[in-house]
Amino acid sequence: MFDFKYSPLLTDLYELTMMAGFFRENMHEKEVAFDLFFRKNPFHSSYAVFAGLEPALKYLTQLRFSSRDIDYLRGLGIFQSDFLAYLADFRFQAKVTAPQEGTAVFANEPLLTVEGKLAEVQLVETALLNIINFQTLVATKAARIKTIAGKAQVLEFGLRRAHGPDGGLSEARAAYIGGVRSTSNVWAGQLFGIPVKGTHAHSWIMAFPDELSSFRAYAECFPDSCILLIDTYDTLKSGLPNALIVARELRAKGHELAGIRLDSGDLAYLSKKVRDAFDQEGFPEVKIVASSELDEYVIQSIRSEGGTVDIYGVGTKLATCMGPGGGALGGVYKLVRFEDSPKLKVTSDIAKATLPDRKVLYRVIGSEGNFEQDVICRENETVHPGDIVYDPTNPLRYKKITRETHLENIRCTVMDYGKILLDLPPLEKIADHCQDQLSRLPEGSLRLENPHIYKVSMSRGLYDLRSELMAEYEKNFLNNSFPQKN
Amino acid sequence: MFDFKYSPLLTDLYELTMMAGFFRENMHEKEVAFDLFFRKNPFHSSYAVFAGLEPALKYLTQLRFSSRDIDYLRGLGIFQSDFLAYLADFRFQAKVTAPQEGTAVFANEPLLTVEGKLAEVQLVETALLNIINFQTLVATKAARIKTIAGKAQVLEFGLRRAHGPDGGLSEARAAYIGGVRSTSNVWAGQLFGIPVKGTHAHSWIMAFPDELSSFRAYAECFPDSCILLIDTYDTLKSGLPNALIVARELRAKGHELAGIRLDSGDLAYLSKKVRDAFDQEGFPEVKIVASSELDEYVIQSIRSEGGTVDIYGVGTKLATCMGPGGGALGGVYKLVRFEDSPKLKVTSDIAKATLPDRKVLYRVIGSEGNFEQDVICRENETVHPGDIVYDPTNPLRYKKITRETHLENIRCTVMDYGKILLDLPPLEKIADHCQDQLSRLPEGSLRLENPHIYKVSMSRGLYDLRSELMAEYEKNFLNNSFPQKN
Repeated sequence: MFDFKYSPLLTDLYELTMMAGFFRENMHEKEVAFDLFFRKNPFHSSYAVFAGLEPALKYLTQLRFSSRDIDYLRGLGIFQSDFLAYLADFRFQAKVTAPQEGTAVFANEPLLTVEGKLAEVQLVETALLNIINFQTLVATKAARIKTIAGKAQVLEFGLRRAHGPDGGLSEARAAYIGGVRSTSNVWAGQLFGIPVKGTHAHSWIMAFPDELSSFRAYAECFPDSCILLIDTYDTLKSGLPNALIVARELRAKGHELAGIRLDSGDLAYLSKKVRDAFDQEGFPEVKIVASSELDEYVIQSIRSEGGTVDIYGVGTKLATCMGPGGGALGGVYKLVRFEDSPKLKVTSDIAKATLPDRKVLYRVIGSEGNFEQDVICRENETVHPGDIVYDPTNPLRYKKITRETHLENIRCTVMDYGKILLDLPPLEKIADHCQDQLSRLPEGSLRLENPHIYKVSMSRGLYDLRSELMAEYEKNFLNNSFPQKN
Repeated sequence: MFDFKYSPLLTDLYELTMMAGFFRENMHEKEVAFDLFFRKNPFHSSYAVFAGLEPALKYLTQLRFSSRDIDYLRGLGIFQSDFLAYLADFRFQAKVTAPQEGTAVFANEPLLTVEGKLAEVQLVETALLNIINFQTLVATKAARIKTIAGKAQVLEFGLRRAHGPDGGLSEARAAYIGGVRSTSNVWAGQLFGIPVKGTHAHSWIMAFPDELSSFRAYAECFPDSCILLIDTYDTLKSGLPNALIVARELRAKGHELAGIRLDSGDLAYLSKKVRDAFDQEGFPEVKIVASSELDEYVIQSIRSEGGTVDIYGVGTKLATCMGPGGGALGGVYKLVRFEDSPKLKVTSDIAKATLPDRKVLYRVIGSEGNFEQDVICRENETVHPGDIVYDPTNPLRYKKITRETHLENIRCTVMDYGKILLDLPPLEKIADHCQDQLSRLPEGSLRLENPHIYKVSMSRGLYDLRSELMAEYEKNFLNNSFPQKN
């Protein structure tokens, strides 16, 4: 359970100025719907792992402006006192629809839909994006790393390079969801119940007169969980033979050396040499931990060269979500319905037009439980054999639904009237759900290079609605109704 | 003032296991010194801007293990009760030496030096790195952006893409230090006193029947601070003429339109067109705000094409420190002295050997107050005309000090016995200090491509000490003292 206390001021100023404007225009209680979605899967991946829902819902339930907050806003000198009084009583009462955390999701799909009064739905844009963007990005990176690591464990230890204290906390939580189920971050262990792991640093060894005495001292302290860092002086000539001495000494006292860690050099080569040495000396259970600027690409290369790593320690590149297509998830939050009217946002790139109105996100499930494709329908609409469905970014790409399909609505109402409606699952269940989701993606979805592209389509009904709104937009704005100079 | 409550568990597990080990070996009170430094300037920049000191000192003063923390650690089953009792009474009492925040610093220079008892100095490694790495990274990115923006203002609005809530807060603070002196992040405004700015989103416009009525409504609400987003439908055909109408209407009522914002399209071209139109219509004071995936490179390109932007709104790429050489700062924290012995850490890459022992970081100041070079000396050592100084990464690069120089020790003791010794300057003063520092760098230091490389050298005394320790290391470890199989 995450006890970070969110402030209602965790927002861009313009959310508040717009709120104030809507209030002044007496539009603040108009009923609207906004969709939160992203336009590109991160990391050039074929999927993303949805994460951040629980903290997002916590934020929404905590949304109260204290008198200190109101005083601060008054001091800015741009808000009227009637609006500030309204804020002081403000409670978030809207409805939120979302997938379960850990669900595989794709570009252009509505993730969160927030429906309620204009002012409240507008206010929460920045914080929802902040929370969902980052956690979804990390969960996806973690899933990519874990997938490539195969049966090897992955340990997250990026706190020292994470973007601030909470950057490290949010990251450990989301990485767990994606499949990286242990962390070095003790605070994350305490808050989220994630197993914590660790070895020791080079400074441990340097604090002793020599490497062997440092290893012996560490083994005495932690006889049943001792992992020795063997690269301080020379991995094969010093660290390895010293670790073997300690392994024998531990065994003589009824314990077993847990493992060794490699933190530099050619990890594929060194892991094989070290594995051979421990195996030959009768220590096949000693685990090899490898670290040093790892990510999914480096892990893939180590594995392809026959490296014998049991546990990958991944830091900077997971914590900061580095890599092509990484660094940030470009989630956006767009108005899709205003009172009874579906709304469309068109930009100069028409392929980036939004999907208007309330929608249902269906997943087409094959006979083996496998995921075949997703179809976004209007509410109360579904798809049937013979229907044509369209790529939302390019309607020239369309396909026919050829047979009876099993559709699963992958979102549900998770909050209404400001109350969380679902039982928030424990993190372990979320991570299990994620693994199950990844296992059901089409073949080739998990590879790093040119993965299978998962089909996301819009229904005929949605296609027609969007076309209609686009035509209306063109009629109103492109042809005749531009204001003239006066 | 940042009131984020740090937990003492904001650490990697291995800091605690090492502490426990030192405690068990009765080494925990040995006197040691650690240096915090980085090996490469971020962003292939010629400099970095040191930031994060105030939050780091706050963390150190808050360091207490609550009974809840102790219970959690006990539950891990790896710590002895005498160590847990020691933790319950633990207070950070060590000495910290550091430059002022906002100081220009360079690769291989000792930034923080922490001197005290082994256990306390080891414990704080992770948190200090987490705080200093990120804030220094952001401050440097912000300085690069602001430098390239010239006289134009820069507004930070990356909260929605930042790495979690505190990612956005820490970032706004550090960006301010680097020269980006306004933010959209209202919480950062409240906590740090940073001026908050904002306009409105496309959703404002879409909530009205047409663009002109949305502009009019916004101008009525904020007649003296109204910035209109003009790209919702068509920047030049719709947004611009509508904004001009509103500018005239505002003036007729005794107000002035503050500005317009461009958020898509060719920003150089559009800014010139919009500038011309407002100038011709008698509104030379209307500011042009530009946004849309900006960073220092895009801003440079807009300026080189004659773009007329007054305020750059920078989001994702500042908040997440994207760009070549960005994403994370690789700060490390290494043992440099143990009891009375200087310590050296050598890796397989000998150029990455640490600089041993206590040191003084001198800046050589020219007659105009300009920064000529930095020299790292042993304590009680200084440099004189005729002395040779050496590049720490390659002693083949050396140079002679040719004349009497003015040396400034750019660090001071900022904490001792757990007490903060300096008056923490207000953020504005820190940002002013940063601007002053940047203005004193050698010519060519601020350009993006192939900037001037600032010279950082080590003194002869330090060079000799390091050579001596390296020779000892080779004697002990490379030639004769490797353990043999038994």
